[in-house]
Amino acid sequence: MSEMNANDGAGRNFLSDNTFGASAEVLEAVAAASAGHSPPYGADSFTEAVRRRLGEVFERDVDVFLVSSGTAANGLALSSLARPWGSILCHLDSHIDNDECGAAEFFTGGSKVVTVPGADGKIDPDALQRAIRRGAGDVHSMRPSALSISQGTETGGAYTLEEIRVLSLQAKAAGLGVHMDGARFANALSRLGASPAEMSWKAGVDVLSFGTTKNGTMTADAVISFRPAASAELAARVKRAGQLPAKARFHAAQLDAYLSDGLWLRNAGRANAHASRLRDGLKGIPGVELRGEPRMNMVFCALAPPVVKELLSEGYAFYHDRWEPGVVRFVTSFSHSTADVDRLLASIRRCSAPEPAAERPPRPRDGSRHHCVRD
Amino acid sequence: MSEMNANDGAGRNFLSDNTFGASAEVLEAVAAASAGHSPPYGADSFTEAVRRRLGEVFERDVDVFLVSSGTAANGLALSSLARPWGSILCHLDSHIDNDECGAAEFFTGGSKVVTVPGADGKIDPDALQRAIRRGAGDVHSMRPSALSISQGTETGGAYTLEEIRVLSLQAKAAGLGVHMDGARFANALSRLGASPAEMSWKAGVDVLSFGTTKNGTMTADAVISFRPAASAELAARVKRAGQLPAKARFHAAQLDAYLSDGLWLRNAGRANAHASRLRDGLKGIPGVELRGEPRMNMVFCALAPPVVKELLSEGYAFYHDRWEPGVVRFVTSFSHSTADVDRLLASIRRCSAPEPAAERPPRPRDGSRHHCVRD
Amino acid sequence: MSEMNANDGAGRNFLSDNTFGASAEVLEAVAAASAGHSPPYGADSFTEAVRRRLGEVFERDVDVFLVSSGTAANGLALSSLARPWGSILCHLDSHIDNDECGAAEFFTGGSKVVTVPGADGKIDPDALQRAIRRGAGDVHSMRPSALSISQGTETGGAYTLEEIRVLSLQAKAAGLGVHMDGARFANALSRLGASPAEMSWKAGVDVLSFGTTKNGTMTADAVISFRPAASAELAARVKRAGQLPAKARFHAAQLDAYLSDGLWLRNAGRANAHASRLRDGLKGIPGVELRGEPRMNMVFCALAPPVVKELLSEGYAFYHDRWEPGVVRFVTSFSHSTADVDRLLASIRRCSAPEPAAERPPRPRDGSRHHCVRD
Amino acid sequence: MSEMNANDGAGRNFLSDNTFGASAEVLEAVAAASAGHSPPYGADSFTEAVRRRLGEVFERDVDVFLVSSGTAANGLALSSLARPWGSILCHLDSHIDNDECGAAEFFTGGSKVVTVPGADGKIDPDALQRAIRRGAGDVHSMRPSALSISQGTETGGAYTLEEIRVLSLQAKAAGLGVHMDGARFANALSRLGASPAEMSWKAGVDVLSFGTTKNGTMTADAVISFRPAASAELAARVKRAGQLPAKARFHAAQLDAYLSDGLWLRNAGRANAHASRLRDGLKGIPGVELRGEPRMNMVFCALAPPVVKELLSEGYAFYHDRWEPGVVRFVTSFSHSTADVDRLLASIRRCSAPEPAAERPPRPRDGSRHHCVRD
Repeated sequence: MSEMNANDGAGRNFLSDNTFGASAEVLEAVAAASAGHSPPYGADSFTEAVRRRLGEVFERDVDVFLVSSGTAANGLALSSLARPWGSILCHLDSHIDNDECGAAEFFTGGSKVVTVPGADGKIDPDALQRAIRRGAGDVHSMRPSALSISQGTETGGAYTLEEIRVLSLQAKAAGLGVHMDGARFANALSRLGASPAEMSWKAGVDVLSFGTTKNGTMTADAVISFRPAASAELAARVKRAGQLPAKARFHAAQLDAYLSDGLWLRNAGRANAHASRLRDGLKGIPGVELRGEPRMNMVFCALAPPVVKELLSEGYAFYHDRWEPGVVRFVTSFSHSTADVDRLLASIRRCSAPEPAAERPPRPRDGSRHHCVRD
Repeated sequence: MSEMNANDGAGRNFLSDNTFGASAEVLEAVAAASAGHSPPYGADSFTEAVRRRLGEVFERDVDVFLVSSGTAANGLALSSLARPWGSILCHLDSHIDNDECGAAEFFTGGSKVVTVPGADGKIDPDALQRAIRRGAGDVHSMRPSALSISQGTETGGAYTLEEIRVLSLQAKAAGLGVHMDGARFANALSRLGASPAEMSWKAGVDVLSFGTTKNGTMTADAVISFRPAASAELAARVKRAGQLPAKARFHAAQLDAYLSDGLWLRNAGRANAHASRLRDGLKGIPGVELRGEPRMNMVFCALAPPVVKELLSEGYAFYHDRWEPGVVRFVTSFSHSTADVDRLLASIRRCSAPEPAAERPPRPRDGSRHHCVRD
Repeated sequence: MSEMNANDGAGRNFLSDNTFGASAEVLEAVAAASAGHSPPYGADSFTEAVRRRLGEVFERDVDVFLVSSGTAANGLALSSLARPWGSILCHLDSHIDNDECGAAEFFTGGSKVVTVPGADGKIDPDALQRAIRRGAGDVHSMRPSALSISQGTETGGAYTLEEIRVLSLQAKAAGLGVHMDGARFANALSRLGASPAEMSWKAGVDVLSFGTTKNGTMTADAVISFRPAASAELAARVKRAGQLPAKARFHAAQLDAYLSDGLWLRNAGRANAHASRLRDGLKGIPGVELRGEPRMNMVFCALAPPVVKELLSEGYAFYHDRWEPGVVRFVTSFSHSTADVDRLLASIRRCSAPEPAAERPPRPRDGSRHHCVRD
Repeated sequence: MSEMNANDGAGRNFLSDNTFGASAEVLEAVAAASAGHSPPYGADSFTEAVRRRLGEVFERDVDVFLVSSGTAANGLALSSLARPWGSILCHLDSHIDNDECGAAEFFTGGSKVVTVPGADGKIDPDALQRAIRRGAGDVHSMRPSALSISQGTETGGAYTLEEIRVLSLQAKAAGLGVHMDGARFANALSRLGASPAEMSWKAGVDVLSFGTTKNGTMTADAVISFRPAASAELAARVKRAGQLPAKARFHAAQLDAYLSDGLWLRNAGRANAHASRLRDGLKGIPGVELRGEPRMNMVFCALAPPVVKELLSEGYAFYHDRWEPGVVRFVTSFSHSTADVDRLLASIRRCSAPEPAAERPPRPRDGSRHHCVRD
């Protein structure tokens, strides 16, 4: 069983960064925005401030559309790049293919999402090239018309800037628009130590889903367009999709606070640092096998089944046995404290210590991928 | 010129009830919901509480979907009732036809919105019957498949319960689903003195857009389904439209507070009372002609052009000359104080007094309807 | 009752030009095309020949897509011009709004069809200007994105070249694409004595539904694009809509014969001449009131109810009482002979003669328009 | 190079059964249907006759919709079974996923086509079960809502009745509608020796794409519905998709002739017999390796490259090197004569004889599947 233990304390919850609340600064900004009166539908000063701030963050003029979910951001962004008769190329593990109930198909009016393999959650350039070639032939196949890159990846990794550039160049050469699903954009940025501009439009991204809810806001994400032609239609598409609320200032106030005084980068840095600390701590624990490279605010490792069982019984919450048997995922959040991480480490150490957890994890029940992690 | 004077005080803003903030209780609930951790995507206790409260409010089990705008609520509700090859019948003035950039067409996958005339913003039953008959013939016409009623109407009126029942019965007899656009549901309820059940499912409504942002919340409205078949598909449609945010509790907390201790009815009652007070006050002012019956939280009246000009120069904001020349609309909100209303009355009295505003309003520039009121 | 009397002879059928078969030359070409083998999906020599012929007919390079119905031609053509979030402006009587079960909405992915009034089935330029202005305001309204002109009109009239140019210029100035529904293109051409180029792209038409089935083919109409950007997406849209049959040569062979040796112009000229002869003959019959101007291959006139009754009892078939009480429509076809026309005239003369048909037609049952003529 | 040699004689063309014309009986019926007059839009006696004949063929009442291509038939059929938010499960090789430019996505309004593996072009029941389970979880995944089976398969095989029943039962148990893509329905029927009823509704099929163009007609295929709920919406969907031509009798006349006097079964039997004869003949030729089981009207075999080259130079046309290097496909048609088959055999025998074609075929250039066979 790998369900969340909902009654336990937040400090023991390492399920996902979407289980926590918002930063205090965001809540204060929302309360402040409620005072007085303000023009509706995004003609307010808060929305204007967000546009200005994002212009500074990305070092250029950008078009910004605030929406209420990452799924909406992805669907709208893709609809401005992919035509109904074109396909969208993305990684096998991508959220848009597995976890959004066909939002891409809905918003685009019937594009086909075509998956491309690649190790470690990243699209393999050769596989991308094959996918591009395969559909380019004639009118019978859906011609690839957009590439969607998840940065960070669904398993917490991050493409290097060079990797993004390579994929974007391939896409551009074939006339595809480039979308980035940045549900954890800030965490990836923090991991790479890159600038927002470098990790987006300078690397070839046309339209970005700028995720913020996992990293400090409540119910607001942004579509950021670096391509005026996409922006032009996004204005209408956003309205038509019910993503332009009358009191849009309440979305804008969240992002305004999020982007002020580097809150967003501090939050992401903090979550990532927690993961590094956890990873470092795990290295010294016998019987724990770390998996993969360091990954933003996630740690993957193999734990012996009794350890998993004991942790759950102590009130910890995390996903396990979704990737391979015995492998668990811990997601850290800006909401965690260092003490939360240390407590988790102590618990794992204690559970792992007494008697060796020698037994092998059970055989996989089924070789197929599981898509029931709810990030 | 009829633009909003954005720099003026909220107390002088009578443009629309969407220009104000949220109730203090709602803001507090949102802040409180941010503490700790909570399962994502609507599996949280706040969402459960809203469902329970709405069950009590409507005196039966209901299915509830919290969304981020009234446009999303309408589009989703209609998509669960109208088929792509069917038409949606609604009033000429309806928001879904005029102000949502084709959300109904988008969410349904290509239904046709067909307008029906009727005095005072209400669908005329005979005209409805003709519209139903017209499309029922054969495969070449789009067969009417849903009726959408705005309660309150776009011009602030309210159908009587009997009027709703008559239209619903006509619709049901022809196999149409019945949608109610309740962007000002609470104001209409307060105006009629009816129960929520009487004004919705007991009168034949299948799916209700339960508007709350104009009356006290920030960015959350609800689709309430009284028809299980519609509910079943709404769950998927809501997700797919990006209207199931990860931190859904922040939407739910808004409605939870809104529905607690009668806040929603108090707010609507207060806004409506302001309008009554304003209307009563205007009766005694020479040169002011009231238009129409009392209308929830709106007052329409004809003012002489110099009076309009003088009020605007004093910092008042309101729409005028959109319906007929010389006619202004004042919308009152729960955010107004009685003093705000009295100040407005005093200003109108003063402006109207000194010299008779004898001049005729100018001829209409164009006979066509205007749809630039942004409610 | 105005149903067709299906058992009667074709020579007495004046219901619509879609009730007749195909020209002998077309049937022969189809049979000839069946011999041997041919590449599928439009890579055949017949399709190439049609493209070449249409290039000659329109005096320029054109892109051609052969489809199986006028509804498909209109839907596809519009989908290449109107965006899902834009509206399509057309005449109140237009086939695309009244008779295609929402094909425009389906093919475009949710555009809104907005009707514009105008006398005699023609869009009024002032009304068009108002419609263009109305939607141009902001993101809440659907912005007009295409104009659709029916040439000939639904009631058999024909815009002059100057009228088409005026409407197109208005459309172009506002950024709208221009579509022409040419279900009776050949009849209109014959009526005007214009060249195909003059009546289409030289007058501002971007994409044309080139109807042929009413005028001599079986099941093939064409979308002709004069705008390369539209053509590019049409190729994919046509395939995706199932309008690229494997044995496309059978569509192409029909058009090849239709366009050969002026068959299409001869057929249309013949049908129009029948209507002129009928009209001229009716002038001399007491009690018959001609309605409107001469109209391609249609004649409208008021007949006394007993005359209508008597004609029907003699086996004539035609629509009546659809426009106003007592008014009948006779549609002539290339399939009719002059003798058929003369026989009809003789019958009307005889029925009208004996006793004066003095009684007034009954009052209209309902003021609303009827859309049950099946052209 | 594997392009068709278009200039060669039909008797040497073994590319696909869609490269040939129609049966003489079909052409005669079309010519006969052109005489006289007939009600438009499917209210004609030819359409009625087809409905009656298909009722006899399938031993029950059926609803029939005649369309102009197999792609249209598939798209419309699927749209009546799969909801926009549901997925369609089909084989990896299926035409609907690979060769219809997203018709399924277009007609359904954004369903996702999910492929399932299985040997020999047939869906593996265990893989189907996994696919059904995978999407059944929650609102984040697209829930499987239809199963599409190609009978015959894309590589010319045929499911046994038992195999169809097993897949259908799995689908039904999970609430999925069952579609059969019967582009080569008659060939499969002939191969199995089953009755049409056994191979369709008795085996669980809800809606059938009844292909006829590959087996004797010109431009008409049929959607046959065994499920009244699907039929009800199909009527509107067909019209709206432009698949109800005014002169529908010309489609109906094709099917009427096709179904008369067993023409359709004779044609399929003849094509299949040609393939058997070819297969039997190939067995005795040294160096030729047959691949797979006997397959309707297709034969797969490995030929040495010089043999392929020589055959092409002699004017034969066929696809090769699309499945694996050195493998060719011969498709036989009712249009072929026995002499055509024998001539092909003689040519292969001659080419294979002189010097042994010992060299190995080249390594595959790429492991990915090719979808450029145009059936």
